[in-house]
Amino acid sequence: MTLRVLGVDPGLTRCGIGVVDIEQNRRATMVAVGVVGTSAELTLDKRLLVIAQAIDEWLDLHEPDVVAVERVFSQMNVSTVMGVAQASGVVIAAAARRGIPVALHTPSEVKAAVTGSGTANKDAVTKLVTKILRLSAPPKPADAADALALALTHAWRAGSGMGSAGGSSKGTLTPAQKAWADAEAKARRAR
Amino acid sequence: MTLRVLGVDPGLTRCGIGVVDIEQNRRATMVAVGVVGTSAELTLDKRLLVIAQAIDEWLDLHEPDVVAVERVFSQMNVSTVMGVAQASGVVIAAAARRGIPVALHTPSEVKAAVTGSGTANKDAVTKLVTKILRLSAPPKPADAADALALALTHAWRAGSGMGSAGGSSKGTLTPAQKAWADAEAKARRAR
Repeated sequence: MTLRVLGVDPGLTRCGIGVVDIEQNRRATMVAVGVVGTSAELTLDKRLLVIAQAIDEWLDLHEPDVVAVERVFSQMNVSTVMGVAQASGVVIAAAARRGIPVALHTPSEVKAAVTGSGTANKDAVTKLVTKILRLSAPPKPADAADALALALTHAWRAGSGMGSAGGSSKGTLTPAQKAWADAEAKARRAR
Repeated sequence: MTLRVLGVDPGLTRCGIGVVDIEQNRRATMVAVGVVGTSAELTLDKRLLVIAQAIDEWLDLHEPDVVAVERVFSQMNVSTVMGVAQASGVVIAAAARRGIPVALHTPSEVKAAVTGSGTANKDAVTKLVTKILRLSAPPKPADAADALALALTHAWRAGSGMGSAGGSSKGTLTPAQKAWADAEAKARRAR
């Protein structure tokens, strides 16, 4: 039984997207990785449309069991934070429209899960993502590596994710356990 | 020839939506007004889904010529700004998916357009919206009145809106003029 996670590092200028299959023994395999970029010369509605259409295509093509999105903080750079939040809203709603569970993880959760340190730098994250996924070359740009790291983080972490996005109706299961349970139930029903 | 504007005051807890028809002599008539609320006990993805589905219904039902959305500022209350930005991203992308132009207006632009003063309070905006639209009672809650005020602002203002969302490919027309021109072209073609 494999859990397929689609990770998204949201942004208007560059949105990193990575798909990873994780087996129950935690072994992870990269399925696809990419970056969707939009020009600052486009109006906001056209930029969000490009991102919405790209996410739709990735969700339709890869049919992930869960979508992991970087949690946006208002402490970020003021000039970019609103665009990041708007892009993340589009991504989260696209998953929700398909009934795919969404989990949110903070940058420090991702760093800690992948490198063992919540304060690791971007290079360390890219290096370990490359090693964990047995890639021949580091994924570039950093947004692509971050998206893969998010997907890995979601599959590996327990006790984080959706619940902290505002309440939980999932009983005593952590969101990660819930995603496993949902994916297992789906596998029993459909495969 | 009438311009139909759907105004949205975005938010996760309450999203105000108002539809106004504006004639070329600036006379405005309310078509519909409403508020979509989501509970903070729902997860973020479920909240954004409720908003996405509501906006889809309003766009399908009223077929506006243009959508006017309140421009979100990072100077807002830190605890709510991210949710407002995520909701606005969902709304803007929903319009963009349908090819409907989107315009953004700041709260002070709205206050100035409706009351004549950029620093007017919420009560003054509600009062004037009620008067301008010849309503028998003030629209409530304030988010509903704000959505109607946004729609009025868009129809009345020239030289603002989409262009300031990041570049413009509309030649020498202001966004308001472009919306009129588009609506007129559409009317010539289809009605």
